[in-house]
Amino acid sequence: MALPHTLITSGPTRQHLDPVRYLTNASSGQMGAALAAAALELGHKVTVVSGPVEVEYPNLCRVVPVVSTEEMLAAAAELFEDADGLIGAAAPCDYRPEVVASQKISKTGAPLELHLVETDDIVATLAARKGARWVVGFALETDDHRLRAIAKLERKHCDLIVSNGAEAMRSSHNSVEVLAPDGSTVGRFEGLKTDVARGILSVIDSRLCRPASR
Amino acid sequence: MALPHTLITSGPTRQHLDPVRYLTNASSGQMGAALAAAALELGHKVTVVSGPVEVEYPNLCRVVPVVSTEEMLAAAAELFEDADGLIGAAAPCDYRPEVVASQKISKTGAPLELHLVETDDIVATLAARKGARWVVGFALETDDHRLRAIAKLERKHCDLIVSNGAEAMRSSHNSVEVLAPDGSTVGRFEGLKTDVARGILSVIDSRLCRPASR
Repeated sequence: MALPHTLITSGPTRQHLDPVRYLTNASSGQMGAALAAAALELGHKVTVVSGPVEVEYPNLCRVVPVVSTEEMLAAAAELFEDADGLIGAAAPCDYRPEVVASQKISKTGAPLELHLVETDDIVATLAARKGARWVVGFALETDDHRLRAIAKLERKHCDLIVSNGAEAMRSSHNSVEVLAPDGSTVGRFEGLKTDVARGILSVIDSRLCRPASR
Repeated sequence: MALPHTLITSGPTRQHLDPVRYLTNASSGQMGAALAAAALELGHKVTVVSGPVEVEYPNLCRVVPVVSTEEMLAAAAELFEDADGLIGAAAPCDYRPEVVASQKISKTGAPLELHLVETDDIVATLAARKGARWVVGFALETDDHRLRAIAKLERKHCDLIVSNGAEAMRSSHNSVEVLAPDGSTVGRFEGLKTDVARGILSVIDSRLCRPASR
């Protein structure tokens, strides 16, 4: 029986306007690191694709650093080939400037019109080709958490989705609900991210890894 | 003779589009921390207004944390009242979305038009009311470094300007030129940021602090 190989995306990504300025978010990578540690504890082989963060990932996992959403998608798509499942814990920047200036944009006193287009959705893209593999998404919303999380699970073809609020960012604590495709809550965890991560991994392990009996 | 009191702005700032997404840059605060340490070595009293960074500032300086450019300007303006000079080493986000959404903007598949306006320039604003105090700016440019730096010095009424390139961001090294109002180079320093900071502080101390003979 081979070890389950779990791929985790973690941290923010950056979408540059020019060589200096970029769009991003405050994702710290703490939840991704905690999930990696919890998966290792359960005997998984773990690969993390991480945006720029200061957090330390466990020594026993392989970490592939990336900057932009395009880079995260490319790295995750390649690594997913060899994985049994994906936990999409990253907060990839989901808009990118349509035009990226090659030199720093000089201030002129005039407003700057920025034309943003959506980046490819990493979880949705990989879930569309998942086959027998499982995919767990994260939904970070500032309102209607539960409703929007279930809509995301369906739209992105996830096997489970973890719903949390923006207050989780940069915090060592988190409060999450794990939702199944039928809309039921299959786990509710609150506390230190390390403990919340163990709860989430326990649900994944029992519901998604065991049935495969690899 | 009172100790010179040096105010340093350091790190990036963030300008939010909504509660999750923001514009920023990769300033690490390392140069600001090195300048603070160098100023303390020369016997200055040091206050740092810092955007969100992971760097550790010296224990002996007072650190005032801020997030946005507006907050950095407000804090720096108040602290400048009691200071003898300002080193503007921060990389404040110089554009802000005209409208900030109170909830996370939902993706719709459509492009997002972002209307950005310039934030107030912290160094220029404080230099306009400096009186007998000195102001040292930083110019980070990706091309025409020297020319643009001198134009900035004049426009912002600085006493000196430190010119460097974008490669300084997130690096422990830097290569700078210190330029005077007559366009002359009064210092050129390259190496570890700690050593470059000592060079810059030495120029400030001899050219701007000593003449005041406080």
